[in-house]
Amino acid sequence: MKITSVHNELIKETAKLLQKKYRDETGFFIIEGSKGINEAIQAGLDIKQIFLSEPTEQYNGYNQIEVTEAVMAKITDTKAPPKIAAVVKQPEQNLEELKNVKKVALFEGIKDPGNLGTILRTAAAFEIDGVILFGDTVDIYNPKCVRATVGNLWKTKVFEIKDFAKLEANFKDFQRIATLPSKEAIPLNKFTPEDKILVMFGSEADGLSDKLKNFATDNITIEMSSRVESLNLSISAGIILYNIFEK
Amino acid sequence: MKITSVHNELIKETAKLLQKKYRDETGFFIIEGSKGINEAIQAGLDIKQIFLSEPTEQYNGYNQIEVTEAVMAKITDTKAPPKIAAVVKQPEQNLEELKNVKKVALFEGIKDPGNLGTILRTAAAFEIDGVILFGDTVDIYNPKCVRATVGNLWKTKVFEIKDFAKLEANFKDFQRIATLPSKEAIPLNKFTPEDKILVMFGSEADGLSDKLKNFATDNITIEMSSRVESLNLSISAGIILYNIFEK
Repeated sequence: MKITSVHNELIKETAKLLQKKYRDETGFFIIEGSKGINEAIQAGLDIKQIFLSEPTEQYNGYNQIEVTEAVMAKITDTKAPPKIAAVVKQPEQNLEELKNVKKVALFEGIKDPGNLGTILRTAAAFEIDGVILFGDTVDIYNPKCVRATVGNLWKTKVFEIKDFAKLEANFKDFQRIATLPSKEAIPLNKFTPEDKILVMFGSEADGLSDKLKNFATDNITIEMSSRVESLNLSISAGIILYNIFEK
Repeated sequence: MKITSVHNELIKETAKLLQKKYRDETGFFIIEGSKGINEAIQAGLDIKQIFLSEPTEQYNGYNQIEVTEAVMAKITDTKAPPKIAAVVKQPEQNLEELKNVKKVALFEGIKDPGNLGTILRTAAAFEIDGVILFGDTVDIYNPKCVRATVGNLWKTKVFEIKDFAKLEANFKDFQRIATLPSKEAIPLNKFTPEDKILVMFGSEADGLSDKLKNFATDNITIEMSSRVESLNLSISAGIILYNIFEK
């Protein structure tokens, strides 16, 4: 069987997963391309459905459906549609796992899915124990975020926390670092990290909220030219995570 | 006078500047949004024409034309068109200026305009003397690149060099660093930079060419988890430029 119509019910339902609202409601999301799908399988994720616009035997045993290129374009987000896409179950988040973490990065109000994906790829490279999305943020299942992780979406545990009390309870005994564009903060290269660290990043537009600034035990900053206002958030995060956790 | 038609000759000519071919032919490019335009004015660039979809007195004295939102959408690249855009003359590149540089970053075959823009923003923050685009690369006047620099496009000198002989002649007496995803290279945190440095980055897809690898005096790498293949190019560049030039 091959689905040739973009008006097919399954295709219409699947395409809805391109929107956060439906991802939240159903608990599923879409992965585009075999590289990302293979990583998901390796990570033990539950693959509900595979769509193919070019037959392959690689995924025999999975629930497969052939579709036309036009149908593939309908259920994916890239300009040049992939030859394969999968509907995958979102792994469950277990806040209990926060009990065992030591190296944690928090992002408050992050809105750019490309930046978030790039950050998750970086976090995996430097073996961060957990990434916390705090407040109103983009979700990691946004297709642009999934793409930007280049197959590194499940190598780092991601926790969505909306509630400050929960954050406070979990990180009481951590060194809590606010990253700030401020001359009064400690320059990154003069900073001495402790054993249990929470590094907190605000969004490029709004920075960190007062609540999180007050929660911090230390303020750090990346020394830079006064002619430049700031770095891209994923670049700041890359430099800080490398220098605190990897060096 | 207000231009209301996307078929207007001036609008059609201006829209062509969204393509590299016409930017190369004419020597002009488009800046979207007042932040970028103000930075260009400050940098002394030659503003040929300003298009406005909402009147403002801010740019009195410049060659201004009011246009409709539809016309603005035609000559710009963003999904949500800006209220102002300008046609600006590309500053001339003078290879003589390479005589005075000490801190230089080279990117070979870079194709992603967003990455290039982010890299130029980072290079400005860490006061790199020059960025070299080597081989077949995206141009810095690509609208996505201009946008990603967030107004930092002319704070770093950019040189396009296609010819290896020219590169060789200019950097004979430099420490020439190849950045590689190789366990045999020196880890970044063990590396001692000299006074005059050329750091060379390949593209994410192809890495550095053999020609540039052979030209290198030193190889460095960012230590990372073996579970992750690589970092995003702009992240690698951010971490390496910070640790070599800023610390």
